Amino acid sequence: MKKSIGPRALIQPNPVLIVGSYDKNDRPNIMAVAWGGICCSKPPCAAVSLRQATHTYGNIQHSRAFTINIPSTSFVKEADYVGIYSGKKENKFENLGLTPVKSEVVNAPYVKEFPVVLECAVLKVVEIGLHTQFIGEIKDIKADENILAENGLPDIAKLRPFIYNSAASEYYALGDLLGQAYTIGRKE
Amino acid sequence: MKKSIGPRALIQPNPVLIVGSYDKNDRPNIMAVAWGGICCSKPPCAAVSLRQATHTYGNIQHSRAFTINIPSTSFVKEADYVGIYSGKKENKFENLGLTPVKSEVVNAPYVKEFPVVLECAVLKVVEIGLHTQFIGEIKDIKADENILAENGLPDIAKLRPFIYNSAASEYYALGDLLGQAYTIGRKE
Repeated sequence: MKKSIGPRALIQPNPVLIVGSYDKNDRPNIMAVAWGGICCSKPPCAAVSLRQATHTYGNIQHSRAFTINIPSTSFVKEADYVGIYSGKKENKFENLGLTPVKSEVVNAPYVKEFPVVLECAVLKVVEIGLHTQFIGEIKDIKADENILAENGLPDIAKLRPFIYNSAASEYYALGDLLGQAYTIGRKE
Repeated sequence: MKKSIGPRALIQPNPVLIVGSYDKNDRPNIMAVAWGGICCSKPPCAAVSLRQATHTYGNIQHSRAFTINIPSTSFVKEADYVGIYSGKKENKFENLGLTPVKSEVVNAPYVKEFPVVLECAVLKVVEIGLHTQFIGEIKDIKADENILAENGLPDIAKLRPFIYNSAASEYYALGDLLGQAYTIGRKE
């Protein structure tokens, strides 16, 4: 029997996306976003939803670009820090000992220490309500060579991304491989 | 040293969202979506991106509503089936032995056997490229009582959602709890 729990913003799981941007004085900032993900294959696009009150919102409105950095599980405390404090008051790169690198393809910084970065140029801005969705065209992805699989793409078992559970404000690691998509569900 | 892997639609991990809709003859269908997630807290909204070629795309354009069902790990084969075959040719509910239930709040069916469902009314349609993004306002969420935590929300450890890795077409289980958000990253 299903029980109504009311209208609320709840999907499990959420990703942990660290969004990099420059302010109008070219100071780099990062914030943590759980409302986001891929939204189109061609052109390849990713979306991140931000409240207007965030420092990053103003940055992206100005710079029209952002990065999405995927942290490994070893950086879960840093990612949480990034989600707690505002770039309006903190230099988060400096306080965490992380290194901002200027993207060569978009006007945004990425986190050198995080293994994967998507470099995005704003394609659309969608006003929804409390959150504004920035849809970015992915101009390039860069990844640490030591986490690449034989197919040339990031090996998720080496990347070890983690997951956010907004229902209880928790982070989880990736678990066991369950099976191959487009295979385990085929009719016999 | 980071290596360019080119522009592509790649974020790890992705959710596995089973989207329910009715066609113009009120026949229920489900499809699997990895490009989606929460996109606004107020009003609570979720987005799913679909190709125009899908059966569900036509359904939602007609019905202006959809559900997002979250399957447990025990349904990974069913979810894969849903992602392989088209509702244009298959009655996926029937073939999988799943039960469509008509939502009382939006014009869309949900999957009785899956533990959590978001009932969404289309708020915006965003044309991006190959994919069109449907932003749905979440009118209600319903969950099986036996997976609820003490806070009244789904307990992710009981729900046991799984994860899609588009880089290698794989499904993964949820792993270990890493820590509490807004806590483990606090300054001492």
